[in-house]
Amino acid sequence: MMQSSSVLINFEQRMLPLIDETLTTYLDGLAAPVQLRDAMKYSVMAGGKRIRPLLVLATAASCGRRADKAALQVAASLELLHTYSLIHDDLPAMDDDDLRRGKPTNHKKFGEAVAILAGDGLLTAAFDLVSRAELPTVTTTKLVSALARAAGPEGMVAGQTLDVTNTGKKLTLPQLQQVHRGKTGALIKYACYAGAVLSDQSRTVIDLVSEYGAHFGLAFQIYDDILDVTGTQEQLGKAVNKDATAQKNTYPGLLGMAGAKEQLTAAVTAARRCVRQIERVGLDGTLLGEMLRYFEDEVQ
Amino acid sequence: MMQSSSVLINFEQRMLPLIDETLTTYLDGLAAPVQLRDAMKYSVMAGGKRIRPLLVLATAASCGRRADKAALQVAASLELLHTYSLIHDDLPAMDDDDLRRGKPTNHKKFGEAVAILAGDGLLTAAFDLVSRAELPTVTTTKLVSALARAAGPEGMVAGQTLDVTNTGKKLTLPQLQQVHRGKTGALIKYACYAGAVLSDQSRTVIDLVSEYGAHFGLAFQIYDDILDVTGTQEQLGKAVNKDATAQKNTYPGLLGMAGAKEQLTAAVTAARRCVRQIERVGLDGTLLGEMLRYFEDEVQ
Repeated sequence: MMQSSSVLINFEQRMLPLIDETLTTYLDGLAAPVQLRDAMKYSVMAGGKRIRPLLVLATAASCGRRADKAALQVAASLELLHTYSLIHDDLPAMDDDDLRRGKPTNHKKFGEAVAILAGDGLLTAAFDLVSRAELPTVTTTKLVSALARAAGPEGMVAGQTLDVTNTGKKLTLPQLQQVHRGKTGALIKYACYAGAVLSDQSRTVIDLVSEYGAHFGLAFQIYDDILDVTGTQEQLGKAVNKDATAQKNTYPGLLGMAGAKEQLTAAVTAARRCVRQIERVGLDGTLLGEMLRYFEDEVQ
Repeated sequence: MMQSSSVLINFEQRMLPLIDETLTTYLDGLAAPVQLRDAMKYSVMAGGKRIRPLLVLATAASCGRRADKAALQVAASLELLHTYSLIHDDLPAMDDDDLRRGKPTNHKKFGEAVAILAGDGLLTAAFDLVSRAELPTVTTTKLVSALARAAGPEGMVAGQTLDVTNTGKKLTLPQLQQVHRGKTGALIKYACYAGAVLSDQSRTVIDLVSEYGAHFGLAFQIYDDILDVTGTQEQLGKAVNKDATAQKNTYPGLLGMAGAKEQLTAAVTAARRCVRQIERVGLDGTLLGEMLRYFEDEVQ
């Protein structure tokens, strides 16, 4: 799927084990009831691509900060939060999914009550892990504040609500963009923001990488919509063609496949423009540029 | 129910409108989808007793800090978090309650999907509101860290999990105490901790008021268990005798009514001992002492 360059492959090969180790160490260290910890760990360690933590670390690297313990904790906290959103999203009252990453969804495995609590636990744990990172308190406060905004009722939860409440109603393109900005965009934008804040960058740089993140997030969601139509269950580890069946609002549904790919291309192009600006202010844009290869096979 | 003294009545009369105003201002100011905001506001403004925010402010007052905007935001954030726990707790997959504070529960009113999201939104919003409070960043970081611990998989979510997964099994007293310490104790203990941290108190004072909070929290849960047996639906605004029907582990269920009242008395006595120590280090223990009158009619 991803046509990775050696720079990106090398980066991922170094970072993925560190991210997973940070997650495992954190989860195993929790004095939590066994069933709760098992349920949390089950979904966190189910083999996600770790795109959000990778974006934190790639942005930090572009800004010259290495992936030390604190940076890894901030990166990993985002995966905890992302995983909570998947668990709740899969619940019978929400998208009612049985399969995620090729395995039974959390509520299928642990029951609905424990799945709800595992989600609640992971969401709260994300803030715990950020606050544990040894950082200047001014940095921690910025990160907590931005994370709460990105994940909360003005961000991800807003997107989820609009998605759920508008299923079956046909949205306009601006409305669909609003859903997607919340559902996936806000958290991915935060990932890039966090990488720059971790590195103590200027407002200009923070804004630039956040803008890159916003375009990346939009591209990511359109790509996900496209894969739901073109992918197979084996590739994706989850049921496909669910969006159409569930009358979800998606890019291919609204614009057709060609229109969706056009929008994807536009988002990736806008992100590339940000990379060039990032390089113009003297930072290393290589990794952020490479990460856009993720979408390569669908970009025109 | 509460045999309030004039000091406590006066304090509550001044604080309750300020707490509600802080909550309303925050919720109304959110750029959130209407349905989500309505659902969040519905449960937050359903007429809770605001015990947790009051404890923050009472502890802060004992330590000489007045209820300024930042203190009110920290206090109110706890009500957001508490309300999320009620909404998720009432869900069909959890306690399956139809009535809360005399009104239909959140999912009865808004549907299960929106109720789950309203809970998620409120939990995240609690961290947003704490981080918005104009406080030294070292204070904010302490509060966020302690809140995440108290509310998360080692605290409230742990208690809820133990409660849900042990329903129908008879627990020992130490096991039941563990459930209650998580379910209600952790957040109430945090409330007192927050009041002292807001006031920049020494470790000794912070530990003292936290210990008071731990005893208060235990008393609060035992009292709640007792009311479920002795109260009426009109008094409590929710179904009564639900615990026994649902085979929940409770103090009266485990120890009988006399045994439960004995445990309540012991918890209140221990809290009173903390108040005397708080006074011995030179702080004003009046309000914290008065708040224990909440349990008076059941204390032997």
